[in-house]
Amino acid sequence: MTTKITIPEIQAILDAELPLVDILGMQVEDVAAGACRVRMRFKPDLVRPGGTVAGPAMMALADLAMYVVVLSLIGPVELAVTTNLNINFLRKPGPRDMIAEGRILKAGKRLAVVEVDLYSEGEEGMVAHVTGTYSIPPQDKAPTIAQLTGAAGA
Amino acid sequence: MTTKITIPEIQAILDAELPLVDILGMQVEDVAAGACRVRMRFKPDLVRPGGTVAGPAMMALADLAMYVVVLSLIGPVELAVTTNLNINFLRKPGPRDMIAEGRILKAGKRLAVVEVDLYSEGEEGMVAHVTGTYSIPPQDKAPTIAQLTGAAGA
Amino acid sequence: MTTKITIPEIQAILDAELPLVDILGMQVEDVAAGACRVRMRFKPDLVRPGGTVAGPAMMALADLAMYVVVLSLIGPVELAVTTNLNINFLRKPGPRDMIAEGRILKAGKRLAVVEVDLYSEGEEGMVAHVTGTYSIPPQDKAPTIAQLTGAAGA
Amino acid sequence: MTTKITIPEIQAILDAELPLVDILGMQVEDVAAGACRVRMRFKPDLVRPGGTVAGPAMMALADLAMYVVVLSLIGPVELAVTTNLNINFLRKPGPRDMIAEGRILKAGKRLAVVEVDLYSEGEEGMVAHVTGTYSIPPQDKAPTIAQLTGAAGA
Repeated sequence: MTTKITIPEIQAILDAELPLVDILGMQVEDVAAGACRVRMRFKPDLVRPGGTVAGPAMMALADLAMYVVVLSLIGPVELAVTTNLNINFLRKPGPRDMIAEGRILKAGKRLAVVEVDLYSEGEEGMVAHVTGTYSIPPQDKAPTIAQLTGAAGA
Repeated sequence: MTTKITIPEIQAILDAELPLVDILGMQVEDVAAGACRVRMRFKPDLVRPGGTVAGPAMMALADLAMYVVVLSLIGPVELAVTTNLNINFLRKPGPRDMIAEGRILKAGKRLAVVEVDLYSEGEEGMVAHVTGTYSIPPQDKAPTIAQLTGAAGA
Repeated sequence: MTTKITIPEIQAILDAELPLVDILGMQVEDVAAGACRVRMRFKPDLVRPGGTVAGPAMMALADLAMYVVVLSLIGPVELAVTTNLNINFLRKPGPRDMIAEGRILKAGKRLAVVEVDLYSEGEEGMVAHVTGTYSIPPQDKAPTIAQLTGAAGA
Repeated sequence: MTTKITIPEIQAILDAELPLVDILGMQVEDVAAGACRVRMRFKPDLVRPGGTVAGPAMMALADLAMYVVVLSLIGPVELAVTTNLNINFLRKPGPRDMIAEGRILKAGKRLAVVEVDLYSEGEEGMVAHVTGTYSIPPQDKAPTIAQLTGAAGA
């Protein structure tokens, strides 16, 4: 099975629909069916006391990785939404880019469960571990993202 | 028992230490010992497909409410860190300000557990529900926030 | 709105379908639409090192309370299944009965989210806090519990 | 690094301290530093509607695997307690033995975070995925398990 969405297609959705992704400096680096790697550039805007990357920035990165994993399996046409996210913060990340590695645990018709490992680039040891659930809308009811945004040729 | 930190004291820490709070338009409205209310202004930057507030913005709001609840109990001197956060997304929020109501579930010496309810202003029904854990550093080892940041009189 | 299932109806399902409930000494004490109270009798079988009630027994109690809350809203005919459960252990319970108070956070068509507070009878302070998600099968596809078990008149 | 506890040492603690382990038919099969495999025998007592293994039995199995992982790192002398457990149920298990594979994600001085994968023996696909946190008591304050139980030669 191959991915149902390419990096440029994902990037187009993110550019059009998720301004936060750009604000936080996140970028999809790799996608396959049920797996992806996403990077978040280090920016002083994202720090917390102690100079390390703030937790909410990590949660945003994990959430994006989950979304990309789901899109890789169902394609760009569905409006999937996160229903649950659980994160364990394991180690203080350095002032560096962060990398999220996402992979599917369960691809059901109605629910997808995804696991994401977060690393600080060039450092050993996982920084945070995330699991989350996406709700997949019934096929016949789900609007495409183009319908939602009124895009002409998306 | 009264709160060990005031809103201006919290605001000073957030201004100095957590640029993301300002980027996301978050503001502490009320604090008491073990409880708080925090607001996030609606901004087009925070939307997701469908026009509603993005999940990561909600997680950032809940994380801030947890932090304020913890500071209200241990004061501005400790370097507490989130160790776990679990969020259930319940309803699509409207394009409005979001309100987080945080309250302490357990105030231990080493761990604090906090619950946060998220609402869309003026709408009925909880939008998201969060529980999270903070690790509290041992008293004698914990640097004050002023020590961490090299601030002279903070 | 009133509950779609009574205590005797719940008890009949538990007796027929969930032997663990009886092994652990659990009993539904109260049910209303979207809320319930369930008791677990203290038994030496359920202890852990230190003499307190073991965590898995508490998780079983919370899971039952979640199930009863869901049945109170959809009635005895559906085969709902837990998809996620998150528990925070807050305080050591005494060697006493435990009480679970469950309430609905979201009653969706496909997902129900439930919150459960666990107490040690006669003691102040919550012992554990649980949130969980149930997946509700589509109405036309869901077998009744009677169909599943081959019961004649259940 | 080698495990700080052997299977017979674990078994002695479980026999003395955790009657639920025997009631549920659980058995440690393998332990290494920071990892373990635990089995739960299929028993009709553990079923739920539909004939599959009940969720609470799976949570008990995961909790035991977490405990064994922690003991493998700190030895039999500490009184560690679960503070958080998050489980995602992925697939209906068959009427078979279940296997839990546990591994450490973070071994801190005060907190250990553990991941557990649950499988149905002989079937492909993970049945449930668990993450959890253990609180490790300060070394000088922690009673040994023998002290707690008044055992003479444990």
